[in-house]
Amino acid sequence: MQLGTIRHQGATRAVRVEGDDLVVLDPPDVRSLLATGGDPSGDGPLVAAAEADWAPLVPQPDKIICVGLNYRDHILEMGRELPSHPTCFAKFSGALIGANDDIHLPPADVSTSVDWEVELCIVIGSGGRNIAAAEALDHVAGYTVLNDISVRDWQRRTIQFLAGKTFEHTTPVGPTMTTVDVLGDASGLEVETLVDGVSKQHSTTDQLVFGVRDLVADLSTIITLQPGDLIATGTPGGVGAARTPPEFLQPGQEVVTRIEGIGELRNQCVRAG
Amino acid sequence: MQLGTIRHQGATRAVRVEGDDLVVLDPPDVRSLLATGGDPSGDGPLVAAAEADWAPLVPQPDKIICVGLNYRDHILEMGRELPSHPTCFAKFSGALIGANDDIHLPPADVSTSVDWEVELCIVIGSGGRNIAAAEALDHVAGYTVLNDISVRDWQRRTIQFLAGKTFEHTTPVGPTMTTVDVLGDASGLEVETLVDGVSKQHSTTDQLVFGVRDLVADLSTIITLQPGDLIATGTPGGVGAARTPPEFLQPGQEVVTRIEGIGELRNQCVRAG
Repeated sequence: MQLGTIRHQGATRAVRVEGDDLVVLDPPDVRSLLATGGDPSGDGPLVAAAEADWAPLVPQPDKIICVGLNYRDHILEMGRELPSHPTCFAKFSGALIGANDDIHLPPADVSTSVDWEVELCIVIGSGGRNIAAAEALDHVAGYTVLNDISVRDWQRRTIQFLAGKTFEHTTPVGPTMTTVDVLGDASGLEVETLVDGVSKQHSTTDQLVFGVRDLVADLSTIITLQPGDLIATGTPGGVGAARTPPEFLQPGQEVVTRIEGIGELRNQCVRAG
Repeated sequence: MQLGTIRHQGATRAVRVEGDDLVVLDPPDVRSLLATGGDPSGDGPLVAAAEADWAPLVPQPDKIICVGLNYRDHILEMGRELPSHPTCFAKFSGALIGANDDIHLPPADVSTSVDWEVELCIVIGSGGRNIAAAEALDHVAGYTVLNDISVRDWQRRTIQFLAGKTFEHTTPVGPTMTTVDVLGDASGLEVETLVDGVSKQHSTTDQLVFGVRDLVADLSTIITLQPGDLIATGTPGGVGAARTPPEFLQPGQEVVTRIEGIGELRNQCVRAG
């Protein structure tokens, strides 16, 4: 099953994909659907998927946890060693945008170093604390695509990444979530980024150092995971900052990030006012 | 004026301090009061301040932004250089507790390295983006106390602090917020931590490298600040990890963190199950 959140008649609504159509469900978004234990298989009005105005899959998650340095190939390109623990940082919900919304590049005097990062994103279904790795998939609702757009100079201006990871209106997430019964632990999925049609990142989730089970277990040791929490699992090699010469996103460029079995984000870059 | 959030008749309510009493206001918490532009000077039932069951000042902020390495004396004790930009990381709302709630130390097999950090905490009143430093205080509602309890081994297990900064039910914030008309830019305030009555941190906010105006301006360059957002401004010298030998919080210990003109947090440490 594939679920999403669309903008519909002045509000947002959870939807279920049925072929070329979306069934509009009662809850206002996927988080609400998951938190209330609502039935995603119910009836509702249909809208054409091709005409959907996608909202962020979860517009207001309780938590957005991002994992850095989690693909073997990306770790090597950044010149680091394989980690013994997941490297975790946060993003705030004001950074999130829909699957086809414009990415707001900061004004040029703030930064011109905006980079792409395709990521498999876990969506938590039933919350919990101290979840054992063996039971972790029971707490996963499904998986979506997140482009962890990174303002590299702000990310690196201090030793903490947050400043460069949570610029307003930069981070598409969606368009839909494929449920865990279809994808299991999401291993073996192709992930790819294209900029103006040119492939920049191309890997598979088999490169993950810490897989879905490990991440859910580790993070739930720290804090209770809640329905609708987003866990972005890290990005593979091929980011712009690691290229020679470095490449950064420019106004007018189109970034496509996609994951096999889930879908794709397609976003234009525009300079914020 | 001093405002707070208490647990009252099975829910939470915003309150105003009037001498030894609290006036119970209609909004469910300080964030709601600030977001709706409600009148904090209205009438309401009274409860004795001494009997208040304080909730986190803002139980569910949109953002909790913490600044690290921001007191000259703490930076020097940690062996670092004065920074050119604020070092920012996040905390999730599940970490927050009330002013007199127990601090949940993780199970001993998870960590025994739990440390104190008294911090002046900015509470955002009217939100905004790209706020100039000269106008920053117009967006500040007031100031409260936050004890940025830190699980040092988890903080340091990777290069990102988040994991050690957001353990569940660890971070008291409150009890009340003193409004900006009283405290201005909050300079020159004494800040102190006592553990079982022994002073461990004692400094003043004059040691801040990045002051209130600078932080509001810098952070609002990244993302829109919202009413009720919390910005913890960093901690002075005297943390347990920097002592010889290092000192960490033990079950049964009491931590008091207090700031002149605001108030104090008083919390017992208990081992989480």
